[in-house]
Amino acid sequence: MQQQMTAGSFVYLDNSSTTKPCLEAVQAVLHSMEENWGNPSSLHSLGFQAERAVEDARQAVADALSCRSEEILFVSGGTEGNNLAILGAAYARKKQGTHLVTSAIEHPAVLHVMQYLEKEGFSVTYLRPDAQGRISARQVWEAVTPETILVSLMAVNNETGVLLPLEAASQAIREKKAPALFHVDAVQAFGKIPLKPESEGIDLLTLSGHKIHGPKGIGALYIRRGVHLAPRIFGGAQEKGKRPGTEGTPLIAGLGAAVRALPLLAAEEKRIREINLHLRRRLANLPEVTLLSPEDALPYILNLSAGQVSAETMLHFLSSKGIFVSSGSACAKGKTSHVLKAMGVPAKQIASALRVSFSRMNTIEDADRFADALEEGLHRLVRRR
Amino acid sequence: MQQQMTAGSFVYLDNSSTTKPCLEAVQAVLHSMEENWGNPSSLHSLGFQAERAVEDARQAVADALSCRSEEILFVSGGTEGNNLAILGAAYARKKQGTHLVTSAIEHPAVLHVMQYLEKEGFSVTYLRPDAQGRISARQVWEAVTPETILVSLMAVNNETGVLLPLEAASQAIREKKAPALFHVDAVQAFGKIPLKPESEGIDLLTLSGHKIHGPKGIGALYIRRGVHLAPRIFGGAQEKGKRPGTEGTPLIAGLGAAVRALPLLAAEEKRIREINLHLRRRLANLPEVTLLSPEDALPYILNLSAGQVSAETMLHFLSSKGIFVSSGSACAKGKTSHVLKAMGVPAKQIASALRVSFSRMNTIEDADRFADALEEGLHRLVRRR
Repeated sequence: MQQQMTAGSFVYLDNSSTTKPCLEAVQAVLHSMEENWGNPSSLHSLGFQAERAVEDARQAVADALSCRSEEILFVSGGTEGNNLAILGAAYARKKQGTHLVTSAIEHPAVLHVMQYLEKEGFSVTYLRPDAQGRISARQVWEAVTPETILVSLMAVNNETGVLLPLEAASQAIREKKAPALFHVDAVQAFGKIPLKPESEGIDLLTLSGHKIHGPKGIGALYIRRGVHLAPRIFGGAQEKGKRPGTEGTPLIAGLGAAVRALPLLAAEEKRIREINLHLRRRLANLPEVTLLSPEDALPYILNLSAGQVSAETMLHFLSSKGIFVSSGSACAKGKTSHVLKAMGVPAKQIASALRVSFSRMNTIEDADRFADALEEGLHRLVRRR
Repeated sequence: MQQQMTAGSFVYLDNSSTTKPCLEAVQAVLHSMEENWGNPSSLHSLGFQAERAVEDARQAVADALSCRSEEILFVSGGTEGNNLAILGAAYARKKQGTHLVTSAIEHPAVLHVMQYLEKEGFSVTYLRPDAQGRISARQVWEAVTPETILVSLMAVNNETGVLLPLEAASQAIREKKAPALFHVDAVQAFGKIPLKPESEGIDLLTLSGHKIHGPKGIGALYIRRGVHLAPRIFGGAQEKGKRPGTEGTPLIAGLGAAVRALPLLAAEEKRIREINLHLRRRLANLPEVTLLSPEDALPYILNLSAGQVSAETMLHFLSSKGIFVSSGSACAKGKTSHVLKAMGVPAKQIASALRVSFSRMNTIEDADRFADALEEGLHRLVRRR
């Protein structure tokens, strides 16, 4: 299962932005396009065969979430999944209340939906993180009221790796008897930590293919059996009418294959933790560097401030050395990180923040090459100023 | 450019449902996944390279429509494109009026959006086809009023191949000074007839990859420069915020390659017309068969009623012979055709209606094999009753 990421000479440590498609996913996409390219809605054998591939992929995702395959809806990615979950829940439940709870450190695909709903007359509580980027169970508990119709929290923050208190949310909804659905943006968590929405009290869960070595342009939304969402898109009968449009069979097959190729999560997390700890030890020797991810964050992500060198300058330098990391999240492209800002990180540290993110294709040597290059960059770029 | 569709022993004549991806599209998808898999929003060379591939594909689509690349938005397919165009236009213009014009023979991805808008307080005029499935220029002219904010017509009907009077719509909007945008669902037309939205007075135009030998799960929406649509999805800064979410780079590259691989449209239409006419002549010898597509329809589609044999039974028989056609449109999966119904086709003929649809991968031999098999089926299945 381990594939060498650094096949050429580069080191890719930007896996929270996107990952390299695994061989299994590539082969599944290729097979779908070359051999199994029928329309799943067609009433002939080419259609039936394509439909089977879609249902196989749906089962793969369902198995990974320990849920029923009919609870899995394919969408075009994490953004569409989050939009459908939040808007679909808000409009379906607006007669029961208009209050929503989320955090200030969500992805824009959640935050911007919430801001839209505020304009539409809903009220939203944004939980603020502490200086380490954490949201506490108590904060979640206190925010949920009998008027709350939706709680939406990410499982893992995409910039710091901090884990959010999911259990507290489902407990608060249950014990306060709120008419709320619980949505989890698991785009960064799926394939890294175990997720069992049914037993964890999660009603809606978003995942994305391209964060788990699957293709870009595909994702899935878990919708607990019996949960009704107001539809966002209208058309044919595909996906039981919840998400019409001819199924994107190549990417669906690719997602299914990527899910089936996932490693044993606990063992892999342990291996990644060793790489993360090794890098932390290396960085401890660089006085300019401040670590912004707390130690109990998911080890796949390490956010750090590179002292006086702006992130843009450092990214450029590292990229010239064939080392790829990011500044904050890729989706915000050059904008100041709202996550680090909400944590109260000083503006200067935000301006020099780098996110290193690992995947199963990385090794401890990758961490060393990054640390070496960062050290060189700090030396050369600071001196040049 | 001509690829043999019947590589094995089967004859695929269901190209209006979906097409076989061409080699160029397959190779582009493969290259994107294996070599150019960066996130276009990433600020390092892997990201820049992926962004270039997206912009190359955008330019390919723009070239095919004689428009600017910044007028092309990538979406997950025809259904999302139609939804965004219609809902986006209706909500953006509702202060200027609440009247919309469409036809009764649109695809569900238009009709069901219109029905939703009726519930939301908009009024919709559905133009009814004549017995041949045609909508007249006069009908369109009469329907447009100074309150009309959107006219949405398909360029080519997906079940009969009938062409709709697009010019009449843009003329009516212009001369009646209606505050209307003009949307064209060109999913069946793109790649078959020339489309130049700017000079044809079209403001919004939807196209889909998998109808032109590109991948399933990708499409594009032409949005004339300066036209504002209310957004339907919220998130990151991708596609200038009009359609956020990490770009589905493999499928975008595949769509671009499929567009670049399109043949010369006029020459190809002539070739297909010969196949169509040949098939019409063959079917004229079968007294049970009634042609439901008029002669001036686009020759890529031929709808016919197979007398007393239900479409399902005949599809099954043909499929067993390795010949693939459809009953009505694939998206409606087994439902009675609303198009044939609106034309006033008798219920018995609707129940036995078959759609034969060609692509550049078909030959005159395919038409013969279909005609032979249909004849055999009529003989065997009628006798067995």
